[in-house]
Amino acid sequence: MVLNNAYGHGGDIYHNDVELDFSANVNPFGTPAEIVRAVSEAASALSAYPDPYCGKLREKLSKVHGVDMDDIVCGNGAADLIFQFAAALRPGKTLLPVPSFSEYEAALDAAGCGAEYYYLSRENGFTVTEDILGEITPELDLVMLCSPNNPTGISVDAGLLTEILAACDRAGTWLFLDECFLELTDNPTVKSVIPKIAEGDKVFVLRAFTKLYGMAGARLGYAICKNRGFLLKMCASVQPWNVSSLAQAAGEAALDCGEFAEKSLKLISEEKKYLLRELKRLGIAVLPGEANFLMLQGVPGLYERLLGKKILIRSCANYRGLDEGDCRIAVKTHGENERLIAALEEIIHA
Amino acid sequence: MVLNNAYGHGGDIYHNDVELDFSANVNPFGTPAEIVRAVSEAASALSAYPDPYCGKLREKLSKVHGVDMDDIVCGNGAADLIFQFAAALRPGKTLLPVPSFSEYEAALDAAGCGAEYYYLSRENGFTVTEDILGEITPELDLVMLCSPNNPTGISVDAGLLTEILAACDRAGTWLFLDECFLELTDNPTVKSVIPKIAEGDKVFVLRAFTKLYGMAGARLGYAICKNRGFLLKMCASVQPWNVSSLAQAAGEAALDCGEFAEKSLKLISEEKKYLLRELKRLGIAVLPGEANFLMLQGVPGLYERLLGKKILIRSCANYRGLDEGDCRIAVKTHGENERLIAALEEIIHA
Repeated sequence: MVLNNAYGHGGDIYHNDVELDFSANVNPFGTPAEIVRAVSEAASALSAYPDPYCGKLREKLSKVHGVDMDDIVCGNGAADLIFQFAAALRPGKTLLPVPSFSEYEAALDAAGCGAEYYYLSRENGFTVTEDILGEITPELDLVMLCSPNNPTGISVDAGLLTEILAACDRAGTWLFLDECFLELTDNPTVKSVIPKIAEGDKVFVLRAFTKLYGMAGARLGYAICKNRGFLLKMCASVQPWNVSSLAQAAGEAALDCGEFAEKSLKLISEEKKYLLRELKRLGIAVLPGEANFLMLQGVPGLYERLLGKKILIRSCANYRGLDEGDCRIAVKTHGENERLIAALEEIIHA
Repeated sequence: MVLNNAYGHGGDIYHNDVELDFSANVNPFGTPAEIVRAVSEAASALSAYPDPYCGKLREKLSKVHGVDMDDIVCGNGAADLIFQFAAALRPGKTLLPVPSFSEYEAALDAAGCGAEYYYLSRENGFTVTEDILGEITPELDLVMLCSPNNPTGISVDAGLLTEILAACDRAGTWLFLDECFLELTDNPTVKSVIPKIAEGDKVFVLRAFTKLYGMAGARLGYAICKNRGFLLKMCASVQPWNVSSLAQAAGEAALDCGEFAEKSLKLISEEKKYLLRELKRLGIAVLPGEANFLMLQGVPGLYERLLGKKILIRSCANYRGLDEGDCRIAVKTHGENERLIAALEEIIHA
């Protein structure tokens, strides 16, 4: 929960007068009917405590990923697992490439740990390059990567990721890899690091249901990690019932929504092409984001001007390493995207 | 989440063959229809992130308790707030009366803190007595009390609680008071410490929706604390979206279910009388619990024998300060209570 005015994320439709929310990176199709139904059904069994083992859900996930059930932990949203991870590891020295999702820094802070910021360069389009390998030394306890990264949408190259994995293994450094947006890219299975993790590895891969299945309100994320000792320590540091029975039901239903996922990826891919083409036509610089959102550059004041038209986008001014000219937009349905482009056109020609 | 076989609470209907669950202390009426409806409605808006401020819910709660909205924090169940509290305070020296709810100890452990156990005596019926006042010295950072206590059901006397409050204030000691079961007793408003808390006090009062409103599966608790600096620190140590939009909707609906609460308390009061009378008839020692559960004493082996009849009760053997002969039963509907008594009768006469 947030108690002061420190909230600095997208999706704040509660304190803004918004007709169109482009600020939260959630599936443009919203929530599949199967999930809505599953939650409604679970609501009538609400008086029972949730299964603290998330048994059914983890069993399904173990089949999806081809890993042992015991290599999977579920959390109250992926963000919960970021905080749990940091609290259980309490790393001495952490390398944090930025710009990236600000909750990594918040979680390290909460655990009383600092971070060394590794600034990705705008000139390189904020890509992680081979230079990072030189930073992975035995003195380093942890590297936190997000691929595709938020807010840039840029992935770490698969070959480089394998090298990072090997370098971490040699140095005894933990790799925290946030793959929450991976499922929203093309060929997600090929790009995932999950099949490459060996027993005992210090690798923690974060996944979410939030984005692809349009269920940000339910709170459900999970992580895959083959370091049993660490997972046991991490789970001992939270309450047994952190994943609600509603979220578990939603997650179980989501894993049966294969067609919905396919249909969504097709729409996102097409609409991203449309947005990239239109933004180019309007002369707005945009990164070639691989997920369901795009980062625009060099457009200061855009957030306020769009909000004046009741369109909420994500200003990226509070991301470390970015500035007033940067902002992020989600890829939504064609009609919505058209309205955004029309609004941008008006603003630019004004 | 729990990853190994360390789960030691009631309500584990997932790994036992159970027809009647007396192990979880939840309202015998289950979930009111208004809450089920509110959750189903919220399910269709699941793709939006939850309000990180829990604005509507905290506004309603502030009216219920006559406190400022900013004195209220919501959590992913009351258990979430126990862990948040311990992590944010990291007390050096904590006095923990036992037996009590085991998550206090788990939360202190997770924060890297120990506790000094203050054993409540069986001879005194596990009541907190004036002796505790002598323990509250400036060296003590925290006292953790549960009233009515879990699993005994025994409250701290209201007069003594006022003295404890004053002693903590003099000593600069934090008072953590778990009032999660208070609403299930007679005259809950009179017994609450909430109206006595002054601005800046080191007092943290925990409350839950779980028990009275039969919504353990949704995860929603809250705390009232007038120490702004502490609450800000505590909220900075968790993700912004720890309270799902489903839980917020359930909580908002619950606060409009006044009649349901009244009806429930009446049933619990009557059924508790019935159970106490019948247990006495069967010669089973039972504490005069004030909430919706009762602790039985001197009946080793009862857990296993009832489970053989598909009735799950809470063995209290893993509570610090209790033993194999102690167990806890929830107060349920008349028909269910009759079935329990019949089963007990069979066991005793076997």
